[in-house]
Amino acid sequence: MNDLSAKIGIIGGGQLGKMMILEAKKMGFYVTVLDPTKECPCHSICDEHIIADFNDREAIRLLASKSDVITYEFEHIDYKELTLLENEGKKVYPTAGSLKIIQNKLTQKMTLREGGIPAGDFIQTESVEDIYKAGEDFGYPLILKTRTGGYDGKGNALIKDKKDVYDAFISLGGGKIQLMAEKFVNFTMEISVLACRGVSGETKVYPVGDNRHIDNILHKTVVPADISEETTKKAMELAEKVMNVFDGVGMFCVEMFVTDKNEVLVNEVAPRPHNSGHYSIEGCAVSQFENHIRAITNLPLGSTELLRPTVMVNLLGEEGKSGKAIIEGAFDALKIDGVKLHIYGKKNTSPKRKMGHITVTAESVSTALKHAEEAFSKIKITAE
Amino acid sequence: MNDLSAKIGIIGGGQLGKMMILEAKKMGFYVTVLDPTKECPCHSICDEHIIADFNDREAIRLLASKSDVITYEFEHIDYKELTLLENEGKKVYPTAGSLKIIQNKLTQKMTLREGGIPAGDFIQTESVEDIYKAGEDFGYPLILKTRTGGYDGKGNALIKDKKDVYDAFISLGGGKIQLMAEKFVNFTMEISVLACRGVSGETKVYPVGDNRHIDNILHKTVVPADISEETTKKAMELAEKVMNVFDGVGMFCVEMFVTDKNEVLVNEVAPRPHNSGHYSIEGCAVSQFENHIRAITNLPLGSTELLRPTVMVNLLGEEGKSGKAIIEGAFDALKIDGVKLHIYGKKNTSPKRKMGHITVTAESVSTALKHAEEAFSKIKITAE
Repeated sequence: MNDLSAKIGIIGGGQLGKMMILEAKKMGFYVTVLDPTKECPCHSICDEHIIADFNDREAIRLLASKSDVITYEFEHIDYKELTLLENEGKKVYPTAGSLKIIQNKLTQKMTLREGGIPAGDFIQTESVEDIYKAGEDFGYPLILKTRTGGYDGKGNALIKDKKDVYDAFISLGGGKIQLMAEKFVNFTMEISVLACRGVSGETKVYPVGDNRHIDNILHKTVVPADISEETTKKAMELAEKVMNVFDGVGMFCVEMFVTDKNEVLVNEVAPRPHNSGHYSIEGCAVSQFENHIRAITNLPLGSTELLRPTVMVNLLGEEGKSGKAIIEGAFDALKIDGVKLHIYGKKNTSPKRKMGHITVTAESVSTALKHAEEAFSKIKITAE
Repeated sequence: MNDLSAKIGIIGGGQLGKMMILEAKKMGFYVTVLDPTKECPCHSICDEHIIADFNDREAIRLLASKSDVITYEFEHIDYKELTLLENEGKKVYPTAGSLKIIQNKLTQKMTLREGGIPAGDFIQTESVEDIYKAGEDFGYPLILKTRTGGYDGKGNALIKDKKDVYDAFISLGGGKIQLMAEKFVNFTMEISVLACRGVSGETKVYPVGDNRHIDNILHKTVVPADISEETTKKAMELAEKVMNVFDGVGMFCVEMFVTDKNEVLVNEVAPRPHNSGHYSIEGCAVSQFENHIRAITNLPLGSTELLRPTVMVNLLGEEGKSGKAIIEGAFDALKIDGVKLHIYGKKNTSPKRKMGHITVTAESVSTALKHAEEAFSKIKITAE
């Protein structure tokens, strides 16, 4: 048995899984995917596809029986199942222990705090009274969050004023779901730093990306972020520290805020390759997906060097369009210098669904931005 | 129907097909492959795999019925079958007409000569007497070639002296196979230039690669080749001219000789992505495989700019080892700066079989060469 003969199992067959597989296949790995959707993005490029629910215990065990190492493309998985596999000697990366802490945003933040990582003020809230109390302590606006299960702004509520507390509490389950409150950070930029850590502790940190959101969904990532050398250094050091605090193995994304005082605060950590790291496929010597595969199969990590300024723009399903997806404008977009097109192969589109992305490399950030905006304006994702 | 919804059919499921599919899948294309080997490199990453012989007429028609455009990864296909498909309105790229001329090395050379492209002296030989005559006209050493079917030195014989003519004639079929003779070119370097041409005639030419062979099989390609600007320009212009002469659509590889007088002569043309173009995956803005897919689906071609000096080294099966392949040394190879590993996923190895390749990028050719040699020395492809 050698490293390249390791069989990889991935829980989740979406675009992140797909981009992992495209790298894994380049190196000849055997990959099995678990995903309930027959025509998911991974379906046609994996060796085996187990069509079952993500929390189907039998299916997870079947995946494990076909794999030497298990990984996942999203963090909303029952860590207890993964712990059982680990107890039976199966390799799971990131580990069930890392996942358990990170998937609960309260324990995530507590661990960051204990690790000496600046992450802003937060408090667990068990009742609506606790939220009022948090408002008094932190002031308004206040962020209310579900501790688990949120993504792309879902599971978050911005409370602008004391009188909105109750509505926010109700909108996030009214006590049925565990919540936490966070002090609002008046940031000047949202950045993310991807980092990869091997089984041995070897860590590689990617350049800093400047993330621009629209309606709480990532719209684009610009790399390198327009921040000082000092702030860049601080952010990259924080990311490396986060990897150690969580004992991470594989790719992690550390989302951070930069404040007007050039403080850098960790906002959230994702224990997986991340949308804001898609730029690395064309932008870096070794992409987040290849390094993830290298890390979980215990191969040496590759260089995260930025080759050229790079801009990534997400392609979302158009508003008001649902059904079998049609991608329009590829010809016009690809006519523009430095444009690469990634289409995930989801059969159906719906409003704001992540259907693909554009990456543009150029000699300067401003050119890359200009070309990215031009290309983005050409593409429409509609339905039949 | 839009460009990205085109379904692609590929004849041949080897490593070239695999690397085409990895690019096609990134853009969301649907791909069907025709290959007789169930566990061929393309098997696990294509949408459909028709397991049948390359010349199985029914299978080719089935492939066509599932595809909007047909391409191929090797040139030894019956062009008549492809002509039939074209006559029925199916798109085949490169066209059956291009393939017909190119797959016969005599008509290939005649077409080059008619197109005003320097390609060295050659003559068709119908008998052993014709070969003696060629020896008198061109002198010795003389190259004897089968007109069709050769690759990696197979189908070629170097005749050092008049007394070896008969043996060479016998070794290449003794009259059963059509032959041609070529004047030996005393070259100082074998180079190749990849070029891609779209349906509209748009052409992109790649940087010049310096090819080093061992036992007539490509060992490594070094890019950029260490030749003068003038010779580089000449070679790139020749490649573009070749694309027009053959009315090429898709990726072509133009192999050339550079003589001690800095003449550039075309040796052979391959109507497909080529081993000597593998460096473009990491070395260029857009790889030969992505541009091939763009060309045959009528999308705009991408930049062929060299990002950094790049060296590609082939990984062949070890001598004396046949059977289920084992790849050793990946860990040590990937520890070296700038190394990327491509393993084709062929189940079985045999001596000199192309099993994978290494690509190394670096700030200078000399560093890339040093790291490539180091990485190459680590990897062994043996059998169970």
